[in-house]
Amino acid sequence: MPLPYLQDLRHCAGHDLDGPLAHTRPVLARLKAAKGRGEYAFLDQPDRTDDLAAIEAAASDMRRFGTVVLLGTGGSSLGARTLAALADGGGGFWPKGTPRLIVAENVDPFGFERMLATLDPADTGVLLVSKSGGTGETLAQAHAILPWLAKAGALAPRARAITEPTDNALARLARRHAIPILEHPPTLGGRYSVLSVVGLLPAAILGLDIRALRAGAAAARDAALEDPATSLPAHGAALAAALVHKGKRTTVLCPYVDALGPFAQWFAQLWAESLGKGGEGTTPIRALGTVDQHSQLQLWLDGPADKLVTIVARDSRDAGPRYPAAALADASLDWLAGRTMGDLLDVSWRATAETLARRGRPVRILTIRTLDETTLGALLMHFMLETVIAADLFGVDPYDQPAVEDGKKLARTYLKGMGAGG
Amino acid sequence: MPLPYLQDLRHCAGHDLDGPLAHTRPVLARLKAAKGRGEYAFLDQPDRTDDLAAIEAAASDMRRFGTVVLLGTGGSSLGARTLAALADGGGGFWPKGTPRLIVAENVDPFGFERMLATLDPADTGVLLVSKSGGTGETLAQAHAILPWLAKAGALAPRARAITEPTDNALARLARRHAIPILEHPPTLGGRYSVLSVVGLLPAAILGLDIRALRAGAAAARDAALEDPATSLPAHGAALAAALVHKGKRTTVLCPYVDALGPFAQWFAQLWAESLGKGGEGTTPIRALGTVDQHSQLQLWLDGPADKLVTIVARDSRDAGPRYPAAALADASLDWLAGRTMGDLLDVSWRATAETLARRGRPVRILTIRTLDETTLGALLMHFMLETVIAADLFGVDPYDQPAVEDGKKLARTYLKGMGAGG
Repeated sequence: MPLPYLQDLRHCAGHDLDGPLAHTRPVLARLKAAKGRGEYAFLDQPDRTDDLAAIEAAASDMRRFGTVVLLGTGGSSLGARTLAALADGGGGFWPKGTPRLIVAENVDPFGFERMLATLDPADTGVLLVSKSGGTGETLAQAHAILPWLAKAGALAPRARAITEPTDNALARLARRHAIPILEHPPTLGGRYSVLSVVGLLPAAILGLDIRALRAGAAAARDAALEDPATSLPAHGAALAAALVHKGKRTTVLCPYVDALGPFAQWFAQLWAESLGKGGEGTTPIRALGTVDQHSQLQLWLDGPADKLVTIVARDSRDAGPRYPAAALADASLDWLAGRTMGDLLDVSWRATAETLARRGRPVRILTIRTLDETTLGALLMHFMLETVIAADLFGVDPYDQPAVEDGKKLARTYLKGMGAGG
Repeated sequence: MPLPYLQDLRHCAGHDLDGPLAHTRPVLARLKAAKGRGEYAFLDQPDRTDDLAAIEAAASDMRRFGTVVLLGTGGSSLGARTLAALADGGGGFWPKGTPRLIVAENVDPFGFERMLATLDPADTGVLLVSKSGGTGETLAQAHAILPWLAKAGALAPRARAITEPTDNALARLARRHAIPILEHPPTLGGRYSVLSVVGLLPAAILGLDIRALRAGAAAARDAALEDPATSLPAHGAALAAALVHKGKRTTVLCPYVDALGPFAQWFAQLWAESLGKGGEGTTPIRALGTVDQHSQLQLWLDGPADKLVTIVARDSRDAGPRYPAAALADASLDWLAGRTMGDLLDVSWRATAETLARRGRPVRILTIRTLDETTLGALLMHFMLETVIAADLFGVDPYDQPAVEDGKKLARTYLKGMGAGG
């Protein structure tokens, strides 16, 4: 399979990548040697076929509903949001005949109750997702939604849980209600789980081609591990390292594709949690073109010179409505005459890149011919690899998130110490 | 009116605010003297009543539709998104009996055509919003949607335009189709326009109390301009300045309120475009609790010490579903027993703040008793004032965005240079 995306570093030529690129050699070799051996679980998800039957059976059961609510947060939700945008275009425009997916991540009681008030329990399926099975928000949501769902009958046919195979609170809750459990791969970290059942079950419910997602990811992985000289993720990681040495500690991901809006949010978690430790890391900014040209671009161009901007662009020339001069009926719109909406999008990202480059601000461009499951799978794998390789260059462990545990413990201490409720 | 929000700077005690605070005295005096004189248009929007009849008449016309599509971008869209979240809770949960608002900002032809494919032109109203009337994206969208809308009949009763009173391309388009035009205040910058017709027409369509929005903003403004010693926006701006001097150039806005998700996006434009110039400015990060505890918090706690985190929290104790121990039926959930979902939210932001503070990371907390029009109006005015005051401390002009003009010109040059289309 030809790689379904390209990476253009032309506008980063002023930054010496050769040094950091040489340092990616050992980690690439390590990843390549580990492939297929289960050592890095995210690396092996694309080749799995053992879990497809269970995913597809569960998806078939859940497709009966008009709405599927996914309860999960962070690594359990952002991958699903990213894949779901292939179905709804990122704007909530669900195709007829498939359920819409609602991802509930927070424990805002006002938001949660408003959601339930607009849904019909008889036409709603529920996914309960927590790797550890102990995520406080997800358990609190689950204990609120299941009684509501039960109003419309037995829970077992209308809910599925995804958790690791331990005796945890979510697993016990599921078993108590005879809700089938799908196994979260126990060695797979949440933010690397998008190509496992965690992302693929919601994707399959929405009618996406989950085999193609994995195939695209496998192609991107295999190309990436061959040789640092041609490895796109290694170049991306080397660029991040080179820029950190120059004090550029902010990394903007700006797709010019509506359906990749949630992808930038998924990336932000991946990058922030994997690299932000021990004073290291760079800060991800999620953006979307063209709207952020009218929101954040001024800062990127003329604020502190501390950013890398990565644009993701789809070939859109000649796409969408075309504007004949007669239809425009306005001489001041001569720049649009004869062009299409897609032409306008195309020149928009090109001009943004060029303008950034002229001001000496580094900008990288990833281009895709189309956005489909294969391409999205490849992009997901690209950024997982880039993150893991960058972690090696930064000298941090990409798989842990030690600092957030303090807050979780403190929250539970506070809860226990609250005065008795009503 | 008592101020509907509080600001808690307890966890910023290590940063000397007195110096920068003293420097806010002249700008506060200038703003106070200018009030009511039209010199800073955003300052005077809250007191306006002359535009209410036109806004309410247009809203009444547009409320007939199941969907209203707003075409606009940046300052023309983000305020509307922010207000609309009071109606849909930030999650697309529209109340019965009011239209849903779709905000179309981008020129992704695939996204745009998908949107139109899911809508019924006979049940759709359209708002066309561009201050200058020359915004490329909005004009391109308008020239695509109006022929579609015309399939269901005359355009005049089903569309409204908002633009400044000049002979511009949007105004000409509207006049050609007899679409009524509401006046964008000509001296009011887009990112400061949320309390004008730009934000209030969509808000009124959605059934919000636009007088209360303005009343809350007026109360926040009047309290803010009295005295630097008690001015909450002046303290916020002083904090930003104090932190910049210590190299902290990233500012996170993290509401723990689902319906304030878009508010953080509105803030990001306001802060980025107003302050990001001449190498100055700090980079806004939009976040949302609790999900970003599982996404970005690791970085904020343990990555580079370059961030201020601002939490916005609503009083949620005792709100939402309560969890009796018997219902939980799981001893490992003892921390939740007897508590509510709102209690969990409450301890979540408190624990996040405390954990950040213990690591010496500055954190500011804004608390609100409830989220309604009055409160949101006050928060919007708070941040507009904080931005303008910070601009004075940074020595930049908060009302321009000079750098982005280059890209706009370049895009049009590229378009004109494209080969002839089909």
